[in-house]
Amino acid sequence: MTGRWDGRALADSLLEAAQRSVEFGRSEGARPPALLAVHTGEASPFAFYLRQQRKAAGRAGIRYTDETLAADASSTSLRARLREIDSDPTIDGVLLEHPLPEHLGFLSAVSTLRLEKDVDGVGASSLGRLVAGQPIHAPAVARAAVLLARHHGGDLVGRRVAVVGRSGTVGLPLALLLVARGLGAEATVTIAHSRTPNLAAALAGSEVIFTAVGTPGLLDRTNVPRGAAVVDVGLSSVPDESAPSGQRAVGDANSESLEGWASALTPVPGGVGPVTVATLMENTVHAWSLLGRGLPT
Amino acid sequence: MTGRWDGRALADSLLEAAQRSVEFGRSEGARPPALLAVHTGEASPFAFYLRQQRKAAGRAGIRYTDETLAADASSTSLRARLREIDSDPTIDGVLLEHPLPEHLGFLSAVSTLRLEKDVDGVGASSLGRLVAGQPIHAPAVARAAVLLARHHGGDLVGRRVAVVGRSGTVGLPLALLLVARGLGAEATVTIAHSRTPNLAAALAGSEVIFTAVGTPGLLDRTNVPRGAAVVDVGLSSVPDESAPSGQRAVGDANSESLEGWASALTPVPGGVGPVTVATLMENTVHAWSLLGRGLPT
Repeated sequence: MTGRWDGRALADSLLEAAQRSVEFGRSEGARPPALLAVHTGEASPFAFYLRQQRKAAGRAGIRYTDETLAADASSTSLRARLREIDSDPTIDGVLLEHPLPEHLGFLSAVSTLRLEKDVDGVGASSLGRLVAGQPIHAPAVARAAVLLARHHGGDLVGRRVAVVGRSGTVGLPLALLLVARGLGAEATVTIAHSRTPNLAAALAGSEVIFTAVGTPGLLDRTNVPRGAAVVDVGLSSVPDESAPSGQRAVGDANSESLEGWASALTPVPGGVGPVTVATLMENTVHAWSLLGRGLPT
Repeated sequence: MTGRWDGRALADSLLEAAQRSVEFGRSEGARPPALLAVHTGEASPFAFYLRQQRKAAGRAGIRYTDETLAADASSTSLRARLREIDSDPTIDGVLLEHPLPEHLGFLSAVSTLRLEKDVDGVGASSLGRLVAGQPIHAPAVARAAVLLARHHGGDLVGRRVAVVGRSGTVGLPLALLLVARGLGAEATVTIAHSRTPNLAAALAGSEVIFTAVGTPGLLDRTNVPRGAAVVDVGLSSVPDESAPSGQRAVGDANSESLEGWASALTPVPGGVGPVTVATLMENTVHAWSLLGRGLPT
């Protein structure tokens, strides 16, 4: 019997806690926290997240706005705009769509934000502070995956876990968070990736496997050790004629193969996704506190 | 028969290459590269490195200076001084002693340096760019350990390796470098640390083990798999009556126990140490190039 590590109840409780913090601040005279999403337009895959973010922000009492980059935006104009936003005292948190088209220079752009406003935790200084064990905001998706695993699976201290994937925005921050002191994990972590010749050998002995590759069906009972839990952070679209959009979101885990083999799976959608959105709201409320909540200083 | 992965020949060739780059730049009218070490005084353990750095800089044709922090230095005065140094066009690279006493705030201080001048690669932005796969300078000691392993042990792509230790200046940068795309390693990496309950189980299957803990004798034939190579980045002082200083430098590996068991060991001293110093010089020459080599712009 394979358990189902659903993320919705955890997301709800994170959003409720965020909403209580906002309410308390407002009772003291603060303005609402303000989150701004910057993206390339409604046609981007990011638009799916925009709708979820807007809804979650509404529940937490966060003012949510978004802005579309001009079609002729360059890395220079994007950095200039983010510098303006960075010094705008009415904005507490900023989300920049990623991956962005290469020529827009995502890393340099997002790294112009001060640490407090980088609520997705993916700027160079944010990631570096995670390496140094002093994060301001850990990358939301990595933090969400760890929270979800601990919520259902308990303490991770000293346990063997694996991360499949080595992206700078998901896989590696996840590995850093899982190994870090004082952030509740302190697991022994193995990082596997596309150049790992034998995935089954790399995953052997792991009790929890976090996967963040974006290859549907990558993990199945040929490479996941029997009884391991799989936290699925991969996200891809596959054609689905029965869906209104003609597409369906799927993770890296082959759930048919792993049913009755893994001890637990996180659903896609409804697993790490909603917790990530809630974590972004939690980070935004944190940013608002760090930045003085719009109160005169 | 256990091989000896000596670092001195590799360090020599790195220093020769650095010296050739310096000579070429000078023939074009550039001033010599300038490296400044900032430290708490000759009584610190860092003083040992100062002497080695000065000697290596001399061989590479790098102007090496050092400055001692005032006894009453604060985190504020240290950051202010580093900001001055950062805008000083006569300095290309800066090394800040670490670990520093807690109250001096090493991470915030070193993070005031621009990426080019952080030749030890340990500021927040430097570490973050390593996570994102776009480093300017990788931390010298981590890069040295990987270079030494590749020099003697060959390509690491797809191989199983382990890192023991999770410090933000050595263990974690080493794991990031070992897993990174395009930096010549791309190994499958397991990170073990003080909360790993069973080190032998965590290291099983690893062909190369990098250790960076600072606990003499931590690794021996009870936890290292037979035939693995051990790259020793740990450094501690133990009492030694026969030494003029009364102390002797030792690594994490118990070399008596591992002799005839491991396939190779790096000596301490004479292994990763000299390669680290040479890598710092290589990074300084790189910084000098990035910053325009003192030529009018």
